[in-house]
Parts: sequence; structure tokens; C-alpha cells
Amino acid sequence: MDKTRFCNLYPILLLLLIHTPVFSGQLSKIVIAHRGASGYLPEHTLAAKALAHGMGAHYIEQDVVLSKDGQPIVLHDIYLQAVTNVAEIFPERARIDNKYYAIDFDLAEIKQLKVTGRSDVEKDSIVDAKRFPPHQSTFQIPTLSEEIELIQGLNHSTGKPIGLYVEVKEPAWHQQHGKDISRVVLKTLSDYGYTKSEDLVYVQCFDPSETRRMREVLKTDLKLVQLIGYKNPNSAIDYEQMILSSGLKLIAGYADGIGPSIQHIVKNIQQDGQPILSSLVQDAHKLNLKVHPYTLRTDRLPPRVINF
Amino acid sequence: MDKTRFCNLYPILLLLLIHTPVFSGQLSKIVIAHRGASGYLPEHTLAAKALAHGMGAHYIEQDVVLSKDGQPIVLHDIYLQAVTNVAEIFPERARIDNKYYAIDFDLAEIKQLKVTGRSDVEKDSIVDAKRFPPHQSTFQIPTLSEEIELIQGLNHSTGKPIGLYVEVKEPAWHQQHGKDISRVVLKTLSDYGYTKSEDLVYVQCFDPSETRRMREVLKTDLKLVQLIGYKNPNSAIDYEQMILSSGLKLIAGYADGIGPSIQHIVKNIQQDGQPILSSLVQDAHKLNLKVHPYTLRTDRLPPRVINF
Repeated sequence: MDKTRFCNLYPILLLLLIHTPVFSGQLSKIVIAHRGASGYLPEHTLAAKALAHGMGAHYIEQDVVLSKDGQPIVLHDIYLQAVTNVAEIFPERARIDNKYYAIDFDLAEIKQLKVTGRSDVEKDSIVDAKRFPPHQSTFQIPTLSEEIELIQGLNHSTGKPIGLYVEVKEPAWHQQHGKDISRVVLKTLSDYGYTKSEDLVYVQCFDPSETRRMREVLKTDLKLVQLIGYKNPNSAIDYEQMILSSGLKLIAGYADGIGPSIQHIVKNIQQDGQPILSSLVQDAHKLNLKVHPYTLRTDRLPPRVINF
Repeated sequence: MDKTRFCNLYPILLLLLIHTPVFSGQLSKIVIAHRGASGYLPEHTLAAKALAHGMGAHYIEQDVVLSKDGQPIVLHDIYLQAVTNVAEIFPERARIDNKYYAIDFDLAEIKQLKVTGRSDVEKDSIVDAKRFPPHQSTFQIPTLSEEIELIQGLNHSTGKPIGLYVEVKEPAWHQQHGKDISRVVLKTLSDYGYTKSEDLVYVQCFDPSETRRMREVLKTDLKLVQLIGYKNPNSAIDYEQMILSSGLKLIAGYADGIGPSIQHIVKNIQQDGQPILSSLVQDAHKLNLKVHPYTLRTDRLPPRVINF
């Protein structure tokens, strides 16, 4: 009922929809456009979101960070240099670690930047040569409002009810800078009519205390997804604990689903190409948690994983 | 072999493709996205072009006018007020007729404007309530270069060879202002690799002397389409003459096809719903002229015309 896909909208994944009663009641599988149609256009641009809408995604993802003046913008990293020309436009504005943090720039400054395909800043190269070529055409970083208006407008003109899939990025980082990102995100969603659990939006976060806070302190009724990552030396979050039955039970107390890595589900590939699965999907389903794994890319999947 | 469709990419028209050997040699019918996917997003925005690419158009249309500093921009009218907030941003810059002409603004000024759905300026209303709502999200007027880079980039990332369909707008108007728009358009196309008749671009113009000039004086080898409109009291162009056999013969001397109105082809609808056709398509085909009629909108077609 609720195994779901998080993908870059590579065409083969859309085949999943063939067996799916699209737009009629509960979907057994959904396609979430990861940063928009980011396999084909620079991630998190309005053009990439428009393309994702046209390609048949059920939900379109927004990563959200705040600008210096507190505006929610759609950007994957808390810094700007991996997808924009910030180093060229504001060369003096890097911090000591040579990164240009979005939280150090007002929205009007961020709007001066051109977005390009994600590059490996150390190597000064595009991540994937098959993708949209670097530094072509003109794209901007959208605000969360601009993106919601795009999707709601397309929903109106096409008649397709496509949802939002919003990630609250690095709440502790924002808190250190005196900003309550979850409150800003939930307020923006509320301003655009997203207030109830049945509304077409999921809100996700890697930080379990923040996901829980959205439910218990900020009292949102929206569907929440607990993202599950990997152990990071800079973080106290214990994701290994989270995927045990006891951890999932805790999550089920405040969230509607989990967003594990696909590697949390596919543990290995057998000689005959069939995947060896963990029990995570079953364990989560027993607790009525939806499972929305990230990230399915046809150019990165192990052979035959698409069939499992 | 060459009856073709000019459309707003309403879904039903894409059904035409089912019988078509898409992307393999000559297409018997093609879909040209009229101002992009302009049924769903504000016309001539990069998002509308990205969506058109994703929806399966074979060609994507660009109307081109020049800015004061001679930059080719993608805009349907020679003025700005029907699709932008120019009256709000530059209230003092209208001419005596209360219109804000693109040719009076430098590109940097034009880039400050927000594009919205086409409105009826007299009535201050959106043309079609089913379309993308007015004044939502943020869109800019693209340059021709930005649009070509978008389409070429998408061709690269998707592997689909989608073409350009460029209209040179109002060459006499540009000439009055000391600008040779055809030369600028052909130079821009050449800069992006479009120089030969087999390249994936059509260039169209309503002014027959200009279409002819592109072939005979500017010596382009690109495919040319003579657009055919209706008698206009401000113009000496005789379109009635043009659709006679003698007129078509003249066109066949310099162009590869004609772009008549759909009303030039469908003269009436019979009681049983079948269309009564003029001989224009047959007459043009006898001269090896392609026929690319404008504009097919599912919300404006007479009943059953789609079947003819």
C-alpha cells in the first residue's frame, strides 16, 4: 500500500505507475521527483519542477534553507557554491572554510546568482557528463513561495493534483543562527492552504528531535516523514538504532513514514541479480509507516533492482 | 508526409504521434509547441519550454523581437505590457499609444520584468481562466540564446533531438528603428550550430519580402516557412493572393513550407461534424511545400476537427 519511490524521474521508473491507480484514492506506489526532474535540468530550478510535473511525478521535492533575512529558499545545501556562481559574484563573502553559506546572504543577493548543474567544487567539474551541461541558459534559486505557486498553478492548468515534498534542512544550524526554520516552513505551507493531514504535502527532516518537535510542539497535522541517514561524526543522531523495531516504534509515535536510503532496504545483490532485502519495509509497514526510500536513479541502480 | 501541427500541447493532440515514427527519419506529422507549453504555463518562459520538451513536442517555438541594445529576446508582441508588469516597474516609459515597446528597453531593464499569463490589458484580466493563474511564481523573458541553451541542454540530457521553430517578428518595424532582426536571428542560430537545411530549426515570418530576403540576400540554408495571415489595414501584404496556386508557386521559390491559419484549411463544419477542407494542403503538397497550420487548441477546435 505504501512503498514509494524517490527518484530523479528517469523514464524507466515511471513504468512503476502502470500498475497504479493514479490520482484515484490511495496509491500503492508514488513517484517523488527528487529535486525536480534533476536528471535532466539543474536541480531545484523552476524549469526542473515544471518538467517533473509534466513527466508525471506525484510529488515534487523541495529542500528548504533560510536566507539571512529569513526567507525560505529551495536549495539542497546550506551553502551556495556547488550549484551557483556565488564565488564569482560575491568573491569576498566566503567563510573561513571557503564556503558561501545561504544564511549569510539576503534574498535579493541570492536572486542575483545563476544556478548551474551541481558541480564537484574541488574538481571544478559537473558531477555527471550526461546531465544538463554546466553554465548553460539562466536559472535562479526559487523561494519556497515561488515554487508552491508554480506547482499550484500547474495543478490548476493541467487538472493534476501534484503534491509538495518539503525537507526542513539542518534545523540545528538554523537555530544556531537564531532562526526557526520549521516554524517558517510550516507557516509558509499554511499560507498556501496546507494545514491538514490529507493535504498533498509531506514534510521530512533528518533530525528526529526536529521532526518530533514539528508534531508535538509546533502541532502540525501535516504528514511527516523521518529521514534516515548514516552515522556522521559531527552528529549525535543514531540512525542504526532508528531502523530497529524499537526505533521504528518511536518514529511511529510522531511521524507518518520513514525516508531511508535505498541501501537500508537493498542489502546486497545475489548472483542471479535478485536483491537481498532487509526487513525494514516489512517492519515499517507493520507500524503503518510509509516507506519513501531515496534515491532511485536508473544510472546508479544495481542490476535488476528495479524488479524487486 | 508533411502535414504538421502547431499546438499548445493539449494532451489530446499528442495522440497524433501514435501513428508517427517519432525520431526516426521523416515524420508525417509533427507537434510544434506554440510559445512552449503555453496552455499550462505563461507563454515563452523557460519553464514552459522545459515542460513542452517533456511533453513530447518535436519543435518548440520562439517568437523573437529585439531590445533597444539589439539583443534578441523571446516575446510574442513587439510590446511588453500584455505579459509583464512593465507598467508597474517603468510607468513613465509608455509611448503615446500607451504601449511599452520592447525596442525602447535595454535587455537589463527587460530582465527586471516579471512575466505572467497573457492578459487582456483593456479588461485587466487573464485571457483564459483555466490557464496558469496570473501573477503567480516568478518568470522572466528569456533571450534567444538562453532558450537555445535550454533546449540544446535538454536534448543532451534526455537524448531527444528537439528542434527550434523561430519567428522573426515584424521586420519592417525593426528596420524603422535601424535594426536588422533577421540578420541578428540568423547570426544567433549560426553561433549555436544551426546553419544547414537539415538542422533542426525552422525560421518563419509573416512578411514575404523578408522571408525571401533571408533566402536570397542573407543566403540562409535553413528551412524557411512563409506564415500566412489575414488582410490587415496597416499592411500591403496580400495573403489572399498568397494561398492561390500562383501565390504558392512564388513561395515555393524561396521557402520550404507555409504556415497558414487552421481556418485557411478548415473552411466549415458539416452537420455530421466532418470538416469541409480547402484545397490548400493539397495545393501546397504538390509544390513540395510543408504545411504547418496554427494554432490547434483542444479548447478552441470545432467538434471532430481533430479527426480530419
